[in-house]
Amino acid sequence: MTPYADQGIQANQEGTIAVNQETVIEQATLDALSRASTATITTQLFQRGLRNTFLNGVRPLNSGHCRFAGEALTVRSIPSREDLDQVDVFKDPNHPQRKAIESVGPGQVLVFECRGDLRAANAGGILGTRAWKRGAAAIVSDGAIRDSPEIEQMPFPVFVAGRSATISLAIHHAVDINVPIGCANVPVYPGDILAGDEEGVVVIPRYLAAEIAQPAADQEELERFIMERVKGGASLPGTYPPNDETRAAFEEWKVRQS
Amino acid sequence: MTPYADQGIQANQEGTIAVNQETVIEQATLDALSRASTATITTQLFQRGLRNTFLNGVRPLNSGHCRFAGEALTVRSIPSREDLDQVDVFKDPNHPQRKAIESVGPGQVLVFECRGDLRAANAGGILGTRAWKRGAAAIVSDGAIRDSPEIEQMPFPVFVAGRSATISLAIHHAVDINVPIGCANVPVYPGDILAGDEEGVVVIPRYLAAEIAQPAADQEELERFIMERVKGGASLPGTYPPNDETRAAFEEWKVRQS
Amino acid sequence: MTPYADQGIQANQEGTIAVNQETVIEQATLDALSRASTATITTQLFQRGLRNTFLNGVRPLNSGHCRFAGEALTVRSIPSREDLDQVDVFKDPNHPQRKAIESVGPGQVLVFECRGDLRAANAGGILGTRAWKRGAAAIVSDGAIRDSPEIEQMPFPVFVAGRSATISLAIHHAVDINVPIGCANVPVYPGDILAGDEEGVVVIPRYLAAEIAQPAADQEELERFIMERVKGGASLPGTYPPNDETRAAFEEWKVRQS
Amino acid sequence: MTPYADQGIQANQEGTIAVNQETVIEQATLDALSRASTATITTQLFQRGLRNTFLNGVRPLNSGHCRFAGEALTVRSIPSREDLDQVDVFKDPNHPQRKAIESVGPGQVLVFECRGDLRAANAGGILGTRAWKRGAAAIVSDGAIRDSPEIEQMPFPVFVAGRSATISLAIHHAVDINVPIGCANVPVYPGDILAGDEEGVVVIPRYLAAEIAQPAADQEELERFIMERVKGGASLPGTYPPNDETRAAFEEWKVRQS
Amino acid sequence: MTPYADQGIQANQEGTIAVNQETVIEQATLDALSRASTATITTQLFQRGLRNTFLNGVRPLNSGHCRFAGEALTVRSIPSREDLDQVDVFKDPNHPQRKAIESVGPGQVLVFECRGDLRAANAGGILGTRAWKRGAAAIVSDGAIRDSPEIEQMPFPVFVAGRSATISLAIHHAVDINVPIGCANVPVYPGDILAGDEEGVVVIPRYLAAEIAQPAADQEELERFIMERVKGGASLPGTYPPNDETRAAFEEWKVRQS
Amino acid sequence: MTPYADQGIQANQEGTIAVNQETVIEQATLDALSRASTATITTQLFQRGLRNTFLNGVRPLNSGHCRFAGEALTVRSIPSREDLDQVDVFKDPNHPQRKAIESVGPGQVLVFECRGDLRAANAGGILGTRAWKRGAAAIVSDGAIRDSPEIEQMPFPVFVAGRSATISLAIHHAVDINVPIGCANVPVYPGDILAGDEEGVVVIPRYLAAEIAQPAADQEELERFIMERVKGGASLPGTYPPNDETRAAFEEWKVRQS
Repeated sequence: MTPYADQGIQANQEGTIAVNQETVIEQATLDALSRASTATITTQLFQRGLRNTFLNGVRPLNSGHCRFAGEALTVRSIPSREDLDQVDVFKDPNHPQRKAIESVGPGQVLVFECRGDLRAANAGGILGTRAWKRGAAAIVSDGAIRDSPEIEQMPFPVFVAGRSATISLAIHHAVDINVPIGCANVPVYPGDILAGDEEGVVVIPRYLAAEIAQPAADQEELERFIMERVKGGASLPGTYPPNDETRAAFEEWKVRQS
Repeated sequence: MTPYADQGIQANQEGTIAVNQETVIEQATLDALSRASTATITTQLFQRGLRNTFLNGVRPLNSGHCRFAGEALTVRSIPSREDLDQVDVFKDPNHPQRKAIESVGPGQVLVFECRGDLRAANAGGILGTRAWKRGAAAIVSDGAIRDSPEIEQMPFPVFVAGRSATISLAIHHAVDINVPIGCANVPVYPGDILAGDEEGVVVIPRYLAAEIAQPAADQEELERFIMERVKGGASLPGTYPPNDETRAAFEEWKVRQS
Repeated sequence: MTPYADQGIQANQEGTIAVNQETVIEQATLDALSRASTATITTQLFQRGLRNTFLNGVRPLNSGHCRFAGEALTVRSIPSREDLDQVDVFKDPNHPQRKAIESVGPGQVLVFECRGDLRAANAGGILGTRAWKRGAAAIVSDGAIRDSPEIEQMPFPVFVAGRSATISLAIHHAVDINVPIGCANVPVYPGDILAGDEEGVVVIPRYLAAEIAQPAADQEELERFIMERVKGGASLPGTYPPNDETRAAFEEWKVRQS
Repeated sequence: MTPYADQGIQANQEGTIAVNQETVIEQATLDALSRASTATITTQLFQRGLRNTFLNGVRPLNSGHCRFAGEALTVRSIPSREDLDQVDVFKDPNHPQRKAIESVGPGQVLVFECRGDLRAANAGGILGTRAWKRGAAAIVSDGAIRDSPEIEQMPFPVFVAGRSATISLAIHHAVDINVPIGCANVPVYPGDILAGDEEGVVVIPRYLAAEIAQPAADQEELERFIMERVKGGASLPGTYPPNDETRAAFEEWKVRQS
Repeated sequence: MTPYADQGIQANQEGTIAVNQETVIEQATLDALSRASTATITTQLFQRGLRNTFLNGVRPLNSGHCRFAGEALTVRSIPSREDLDQVDVFKDPNHPQRKAIESVGPGQVLVFECRGDLRAANAGGILGTRAWKRGAAAIVSDGAIRDSPEIEQMPFPVFVAGRSATISLAIHHAVDINVPIGCANVPVYPGDILAGDEEGVVVIPRYLAAEIAQPAADQEELERFIMERVKGGASLPGTYPPNDETRAAFEEWKVRQS
Repeated sequence: MTPYADQGIQANQEGTIAVNQETVIEQATLDALSRASTATITTQLFQRGLRNTFLNGVRPLNSGHCRFAGEALTVRSIPSREDLDQVDVFKDPNHPQRKAIESVGPGQVLVFECRGDLRAANAGGILGTRAWKRGAAAIVSDGAIRDSPEIEQMPFPVFVAGRSATISLAIHHAVDINVPIGCANVPVYPGDILAGDEEGVVVIPRYLAAEIAQPAADQEELERFIMERVKGGASLPGTYPPNDETRAAFEEWKVRQS
């Protein structure tokens, strides 16, 4: 994977590996990624050496409204402490959990690191609604959600690893906004691109988003063609992956489709 | 949390901490609790110092019929032993699994401790139906259920942590009725009040049920008002939690609602 | 359980315990087993000393099309290795994952051992469709599937322990076809009979399939009768399990039903 | 395993399966069992149909003083509750944790059910010392211990699944003495016989203790003989398990040993 | 636990709850805490409402050199990414893993958050040696260590949850120094006081360190006295916890000791 | 990692990826690898793109006799079945568990796949002794061992993930010898080279063993030099990793050492 290092990724002066997050992301790239399946995108990333990009166990609450692509705004939490994490803390408008919600902009994805601890929620119906109203693209968490019956009805992508009625403060202490986090054991850097579908969520390093958008769309189209063939009785050898003959038939099919 | 000790909770002569379960529970209290969400109830309990009251991972089989509130009738099990736990044991009408079902009265909740072991069911369709017909308020278990396709169709709240076709005797030996148990890592004393909704189940110490019923209803109403505001575009600061202005608007809103 | 050893099960010369898989399975046996619930079948097996036959945690993707019974064609995988498991391997028509799909015949069940590792899929939409088109009875895996939104819509029984968009090669290296495997911690020998319903999948040693088919059907009928009684208000003692009186009523009921 | 049912094990009137715990246990039986290894004892139990008798993950703190055999005095705990489980409860001499310690008699084994939860201790140095001074044979727990550095030095068998400095009340509420429990997922009935060695602890149904004591001693002797042969270069076939020739040599060896 | 809020703990302007870490810690406090056992310290914290302060599963590598007390210098890691985490990154002297080691001062404790992931080390022999040479009080991690055979021999407290030869970069990406972290599910704020003994490590909120140092020392002395009595045959009631008579005897004993 | 594919690794006709295991392994290579630490070897493999080579959680029973390097002879097991796995099966000298022991040759490592299930042993004292007497280099298992007190005393490397007195047949059915397996989630192909030390075991693809032996030895020497410097007070920058000056000093040091 030296190619990526060659693209200018280096250690910076502050003691972390510089991740170039200044790449401009075109809306067309997000649109293409939100149309691709997460299965297709993870394959594109796998082919570039990234094996750990899908958020295992994180599932959509409303499968009718779960397709999205957007950039990560991260929220980090640590375990709570009884003396610090009492209900009164939410009176502070600067509390990181609340501030994160009020910071999210159109097209951004709120990504919560909950350390996979499902014993309490990290957000509920009112916070979810506010994020949606602010134009967020989605909420993604490796923790649990509360008010899930209400959120399941919202036309807004929310992906979580579980449900818990328990207030966040019982387990989680939100502590940072927009720092690199781990979510469901996958690294997420602020500005990374996340995409979701009925299966779950994939994290795409920002600098790769544009690079894989077109190949992902191409792969989707090819697989639709292959699926038609397989439904028609074709056997796998020569069809999947396609040999030259199948590829030629695919080119003709594409012409006919358009 | 000394206040509760001040309410007369003390160690008794039999070597256990006396839990005052003689509090009379009004039907109105149960009604209020069954209307409140489990998210609201856990917050009320959290504010009183109880952080571990929600049954994590225990989910309703039929989300269309899962709202309930009732008092616990507990059933304890230990791991089974091959020589003791054979099919013939069920010929005995006194077998605790069967006796528990035939003991449950109207409004009671059968709560099973299965040690979180999902490798076998602890009940199935016929037992579930009998409990329902006896007027039970719900069945709650931190184990698995069998005949789940049938039970999913019943208009009766059944909450479990999993599904397994395997007969209970392969893993579970029912051993006691109406003793204190742990269910999904939450203590449940006979007579405690349980409430359930689409999200799951919360356990309420009996002596607190009446104390939190009204605040829970009030909190629900306030959150409905806040949700309206947030849906209308209000930002979190000043709205959630509400400042004086929002509280005043809430008071007006309540008048208009009634 | 010496009886089964008496039926001729012995160690063979190749160093494994000979499992008699030459028993002929009648279509009527498969039909009877696919009509029985997995709860009924596991009880029949439990009564014959087999306590570990249900695939815990393996669930149907499409509960509207999940009833099946068929014989096992097994696929074994081990953890993948970065230098061996790259996308190009699928160009080889002999790759075991692909070969397994192209080997499955009508009425056979593809059973995948994925060591319970859900971090990658072991198959997806195109492979699933091809197995279906070849007449497979079902796909069963203790791993994850990708393209699950598509497979959920197929009128074909697919049972998995999870969903993951990640390509199989990231975690799994398919290595063998039709060897004994463990699936969800249950032994599966090639030729064993599997049956599935909305609850999950049970594995039946081949030599027992015919032996339990009729008792399972009888048990189902008896339990339907008992359920009617319980719905009508009967108490458990004398009804479940049935005493002589109930059994007599059942015999009459059966006559009336036919 | 019908033989054991034939020995008179039946369901009793109180709704539990009657376990005959009135068998008198001779000191010679305990002596023989404490000399046998747990590996030998579990094999004897396996041959009688009991597959789940070893406490997995429960290990001796002081391997120089861990051999024991004695009868179970059980202590059950459930999850603690913040309002009930405060330090003052220990002022009550009837508190079950304290009462259990003061009840244990010479040759008895204190067996704690901690639900495998290692987040707090269930006893510490002072309680352990008191049990030892009262003549207990051992302490066995599927939870954690505190003051482990001190207990490791005591010439007294203590077996635990972990170590935690945290006071029991943070997680455990002792609730019952001498009821059937599960410990490390193995059923333990009051009066059952437990035996321990450097490897761990095995639970022996009381009625079987005498029955297996001699076979266990015989098996140990045979395996010592086989080990000698294997150390001398013998191959496994014919030696382990022994064929007639090896058995004859063993009989001679026994004569020479005595 | 309002008392602590009354001591001036409040939400600050940056959106996190202000934790007052400016309390001056006297050397005498550290000395007292390093002499107390972790069992004693967790009890003192439990009595002040803090139930989750012991690092479960984190154990000393060298039990002969594990007593320490010092203030936390934290290091946070997230999951690694294949393109970013290659061996060359360590050429950068600012890499956070290296920078943390070179930042640690006398009496400080390096505390690593490894998300409980034991699949790779987060440090090894050379880094451990450098920290020791810089005067660090200890290294504490909820991850694994490599070169453990070497580190076990060092006269320096190192506490870990496991051992793994695998280089950190395979799993961990060090990302931050001196931010609040979770370690073994316990919150650790930079400047908090950690103390360790043969049993493990406890985390003490900085503002409480001085408050509990003397009571902990007193409790230790009392328990030494009680232990003497119990070793001499005293029963628990009246002794543990001590009644007035025992307390009086303790006062006399103290006089005699000095 | 295309280089390795370029070395001739391809899919073969039998449907598996051809792994070239015909490489001749010199004794000098094994000697070098057994002197290197597993930490060094995993780093060498990591630098060649292999991130998952260390057997997490598999530990030596006798740390005084645990250094080894040898080639893998694998044994695969699946879950046992009550009717097949009874004590009599061991009378068959061809039983795979016994046959594996009698097949192992000098310098070979018996590697057992136990699916990480620690509920029963997969071997004990007599089998371990026989393997040792046959000249095996080591026994490695991701399961448990029985007779561990005895095996701990043997001057023979045995690495396991746990201890269980329970006979293998209760959980494991040995089924195959010398097929590719997964052990502790790492792929092991027959003929792969395993090396062990006090920390654990690493698996080296056979074709890489010679390639990494010398670099591993070099790395060990360099790290010994660096350790000397760090012990002498050197800071990490410029020392670890070494800059040109440090490398020059190392070259001088090597001359002085020889």
